[in-house]
Amino acid sequence: MTFSTDEPIRVLITGGTFDKEYDEINGRLYFKDSHLSEMLALGRCKLNLEIRTLMMVDSLEMTEADREIIVEQCRACPEHRIVITHGTDTMETTARMLADKVDGKTVVLTGAMIPYKFGSSDGLFNLGSALAFVQTLPPGVYVAMNAQCFSAEHVRKNKQEGVFEQKETRSE
Amino acid sequence: MTFSTDEPIRVLITGGTFDKEYDEINGRLYFKDSHLSEMLALGRCKLNLEIRTLMMVDSLEMTEADREIIVEQCRACPEHRIVITHGTDTMETTARMLADKVDGKTVVLTGAMIPYKFGSSDGLFNLGSALAFVQTLPPGVYVAMNAQCFSAEHVRKNKQEGVFEQKETRSE
Amino acid sequence: MTFSTDEPIRVLITGGTFDKEYDEINGRLYFKDSHLSEMLALGRCKLNLEIRTLMMVDSLEMTEADREIIVEQCRACPEHRIVITHGTDTMETTARMLADKVDGKTVVLTGAMIPYKFGSSDGLFNLGSALAFVQTLPPGVYVAMNAQCFSAEHVRKNKQEGVFEQKETRSE
Amino acid sequence: MTFSTDEPIRVLITGGTFDKEYDEINGRLYFKDSHLSEMLALGRCKLNLEIRTLMMVDSLEMTEADREIIVEQCRACPEHRIVITHGTDTMETTARMLADKVDGKTVVLTGAMIPYKFGSSDGLFNLGSALAFVQTLPPGVYVAMNAQCFSAEHVRKNKQEGVFEQKETRSE
Repeated sequence: MTFSTDEPIRVLITGGTFDKEYDEINGRLYFKDSHLSEMLALGRCKLNLEIRTLMMVDSLEMTEADREIIVEQCRACPEHRIVITHGTDTMETTARMLADKVDGKTVVLTGAMIPYKFGSSDGLFNLGSALAFVQTLPPGVYVAMNAQCFSAEHVRKNKQEGVFEQKETRSE
Repeated sequence: MTFSTDEPIRVLITGGTFDKEYDEINGRLYFKDSHLSEMLALGRCKLNLEIRTLMMVDSLEMTEADREIIVEQCRACPEHRIVITHGTDTMETTARMLADKVDGKTVVLTGAMIPYKFGSSDGLFNLGSALAFVQTLPPGVYVAMNAQCFSAEHVRKNKQEGVFEQKETRSE
Repeated sequence: MTFSTDEPIRVLITGGTFDKEYDEINGRLYFKDSHLSEMLALGRCKLNLEIRTLMMVDSLEMTEADREIIVEQCRACPEHRIVITHGTDTMETTARMLADKVDGKTVVLTGAMIPYKFGSSDGLFNLGSALAFVQTLPPGVYVAMNAQCFSAEHVRKNKQEGVFEQKETRSE
Repeated sequence: MTFSTDEPIRVLITGGTFDKEYDEINGRLYFKDSHLSEMLALGRCKLNLEIRTLMMVDSLEMTEADREIIVEQCRACPEHRIVITHGTDTMETTARMLADKVDGKTVVLTGAMIPYKFGSSDGLFNLGSALAFVQTLPPGVYVAMNAQCFSAEHVRKNKQEGVFEQKETRSE
């Protein structure tokens, strides 16, 4: 068998559309608490997860220092399999930085185009796929969106269509 | 890379809780159309899928003849990767029959404890994980539920708790 | 002004489709707790309500003794305005019994065709209208469904279409 | 009987939180189409409604000219009962202008604190109550929110708490 469901998996929460909520007092989107636990309960997830919230930010506002924290957490944690929830706008940037700096671990970034609280979110679907990919893929850094999985080096967000796709690499 | 997202994946629909609806005229649960396309749209799934509805039945009412149809479809289809949506009550029976009779293909059965139309379903989460497992696992027959994946030989539904688990195999 | 929102309103819960849930262990519909408080919170209801659960039954199984309890509670409570949540199948029977036996109070029965927990329920809409009708109508017994309000004497459920309608009264 | 459900009711759509959606491409809230028809279908509303979309705006951006259009439509329409969906932030301003300029009609403004598309909206509840109040109240202009109904002269939005309340009128 190529996978084991007993091995603990680290889940790092960084915010992103996944966790945005509607503030009914001022009519703006904002972050309060993560919905990850609620989503895992809904999915009746039986994996052995170690969940940590690192930050709750829109990925357009994620700083270099924020990314260093993510890298550090991936390196320091004892688990070899890691899922990171992340805003989609700069997911590829964080993925490539992790690919440069984290070795020997399977890291899967995922997120959502629609906030989980908004009823018609893709978040639960993406989370299910990310947790499956992280159990089965060899060490490396990946982005799991749209039921697809891309390696960090070859992924880009198509911002016109709101989907992720394989980046063409020239001269190969 | 251990997987390719270009290869077409066959999806076979057989019914199950996944697709149950509430009949407001008589207050009973029933099957109308599958919600699979709606779920894939919600998940913004970009995989190349060939979807076919084989039947729409409660898996407690699935006959030997029904299972033969599923086996036949798995054998006959040109795709090497197959996801089957199935009621949870007899999912392990169908899985073991497929394990006996289908060779050289990766087959993943999945389902839901709560109907997709009932708002708080685990279906979208399970579908996301099944589509990830089917892309990454070697040939064999598997059940994907609760973010876990079990091989057909070792899975059982714990009917008291409504979750799937590893079956203990004696004399090993 | 024809109404006051300060006066307390009695709400009596009797079950019905409103409060049905899906039992994921056995795949059947059943009653657990009422969702009324959750619905009122969702609607940000600011009325002064006295809520009591009298029973949690499918209205097809409601007995004469159950109806006597409802009558007794309507008579005995100090409030002059009462909303009753009730299964739709025998709502007209209870309404007519109340019309015979309760005087000087405004009583509005309401319910749902789809359980509140099933995502696409009419329950919240009906509850909003029932709470409005009960504040504004003169003493009498009414059924509030489909944004309409019928007096107990002239209502019937059209069981083919699942809607409530004015009953034709002959020779008038 | 104090009301008739046969009389046609005019519904005027002006936008507001009710109809806001999440734009998954840029992560902002915006207006596309009104969800009113979908909400009425969900509520299985059987009233005879004449629905017209006048504008789709955040009520903070509603101009004097916009309000003149609403007044004009209320005056000109043949119906005597009118429901207006409206953003909550300036609902009281529009209500008072209508109270000054529209005579002999029952006008009920309603809205939502949470967009209908966001899963946990109060919109369906408020719409149900507004459609009930408009059928039962005498001519005048009202705001229906939180299951309560306020006359235009005495309503204010408590912006700290996000609820509507009776405005204290001094020395009267």
